[in-house]
Amino acid sequence: MAGPTVADAGEFGLIGEIVHGLDLPLSVPVGPGDDCAVFSPRGDVAVSTDAMVEDVHFRRVWSGPHDVGRKAVASAMADVEAMGATPVGVVLSLTVPPALEAAWVAECASGVKEECAACGASLLGGDVTRGERIALVATVFGDLAGRPPVLRSGARAGDVVAYIGRLGMAAAGLAVLSRGFRSPGAVVKAHRVPEPPYGQGATAAVAGASAMIDCSDGLVADLGHVAEASGVTIEIDTAALEVSEPQRTVAAAIGGGDPLTYLLGGGDDHALLATFAPADVPAGWTVIGRVAAGEPAVLVDGEPWAADGGWTHF
Amino acid sequence: MAGPTVADAGEFGLIGEIVHGLDLPLSVPVGPGDDCAVFSPRGDVAVSTDAMVEDVHFRRVWSGPHDVGRKAVASAMADVEAMGATPVGVVLSLTVPPALEAAWVAECASGVKEECAACGASLLGGDVTRGERIALVATVFGDLAGRPPVLRSGARAGDVVAYIGRLGMAAAGLAVLSRGFRSPGAVVKAHRVPEPPYGQGATAAVAGASAMIDCSDGLVADLGHVAEASGVTIEIDTAALEVSEPQRTVAAAIGGGDPLTYLLGGGDDHALLATFAPADVPAGWTVIGRVAAGEPAVLVDGEPWAADGGWTHF
Repeated sequence: MAGPTVADAGEFGLIGEIVHGLDLPLSVPVGPGDDCAVFSPRGDVAVSTDAMVEDVHFRRVWSGPHDVGRKAVASAMADVEAMGATPVGVVLSLTVPPALEAAWVAECASGVKEECAACGASLLGGDVTRGERIALVATVFGDLAGRPPVLRSGARAGDVVAYIGRLGMAAAGLAVLSRGFRSPGAVVKAHRVPEPPYGQGATAAVAGASAMIDCSDGLVADLGHVAEASGVTIEIDTAALEVSEPQRTVAAAIGGGDPLTYLLGGGDDHALLATFAPADVPAGWTVIGRVAAGEPAVLVDGEPWAADGGWTHF
Repeated sequence: MAGPTVADAGEFGLIGEIVHGLDLPLSVPVGPGDDCAVFSPRGDVAVSTDAMVEDVHFRRVWSGPHDVGRKAVASAMADVEAMGATPVGVVLSLTVPPALEAAWVAECASGVKEECAACGASLLGGDVTRGERIALVATVFGDLAGRPPVLRSGARAGDVVAYIGRLGMAAAGLAVLSRGFRSPGAVVKAHRVPEPPYGQGATAAVAGASAMIDCSDGLVADLGHVAEASGVTIEIDTAALEVSEPQRTVAAAIGGGDPLTYLLGGGDDHALLATFAPADVPAGWTVIGRVAAGEPAVLVDGEPWAADGGWTHF
């Protein structure tokens, strides 16, 4: 039997549900409930926003509310990491149809809070409005703690290209879900909830990263943004990319045979991609290529890569 | 003839349109275009978010795109003022149907930028996604510049209550628009674009305001939030409220005769309401009542006020 709906709970009931049980650190002197929340950064503040709309960015038949809440925070906060900043806060704007079960909102909020805890940020506020489709907008901010931001434009010839996090797992998951399958579990789980390598953005900044971006559109597409902003050519060696067993399985079964397509073209895993002087690569990062002088371009094993699509919403 | 649509322009074309021609101050070292924007606050940061959804918060037959853009920023930034902070930045998330004319987005973005300029904030980023209805989510940031925030909870017996800005003008405008009229112009314009008294939040904070809130739900409802948070009774004298000529006209024609209903119950003008020690009221603010010891309540001319409705979305 269906429980109470969003309309039954009301706007203030839902907001109460979302901000219930928050445990705020000293760096957040004012939490939700006043006109604004207040936080105390140690340095400059990095800010980004990301929207997740039902049937555009997620489907309720494939992802539960807890997963959707986690993903909204994770995919936005990856941008904060990509500046070299430390996650501080999240503000969530939630649009929900009046007939949606209130329990969906409660579980989604619990996912939002779990992901906030995972990255060390506080949920600082929320806003609930009604609409025909579920939409979550997460605006996230990070503290640069006195460091300058790591931009896309700093890659220099002679740097190496390295990454940390997952590549092409979410894309393989989407491929199986789109065909009605629910396994392998690792890739389906990766589609549902990205796991950005929290803390590694600041680690890379401290290590001296010259440029950084998170991998949301796909490896080739996102390194293309770095190549463009920096005015350099980026060369990737596919031999350095580690293809996982589930990716091989999916590619063999449904993808036409080449799992590299997921690693080169698949977004949504939110790995961090950065360029470093060769001696500066932090532990745990995998070197996959180099930066060369030349026209802005990304070469894969020395050639332009055809299927670099990326993702636009229209 | 209809021009190009949102689908024709594409996501990146629209974002380009929104962030085109931005002139960033020194306090914003990184504008839109990288993973995050970066700003440099002098003190603690106040943050709030506000959503405006088509046919819930605005109607396209009543408000043009430029007005909608201005209103989204103004209604959110009033919360920053209400903490005593100075507006710094805005991040906009825009949801639009693919068939919407791209010109609507361009004009809306121009309204957003005009209001940013009016309050002294920078547009720090944007995100565009498709959806069935137009929705704008503005997340706004203010700089407390070393001051503590002014909360709702600081009102003390013996304080006076004062406001600055418009009261009940937007509500009178909504009343005429709802009945198919387009005049008086002053109230219709007030419904379309609130004009929060920018700068007066920081002025009140410096003057020693003990509590502050912006008037978004209605004078009685919002002072009710202050009374609740502070544990005091707030008494309003209607003789101190200045009723405008257009409000009298509208009330006489369609509102049942009493224009005070708009001033006491109408929200959306985003005046600032604050409590002060009697000697601290800044120039330009109008004293309309006082704070007394007692149960949390708002009394209007000594009586509870019946029509204090407020506004919830469900």
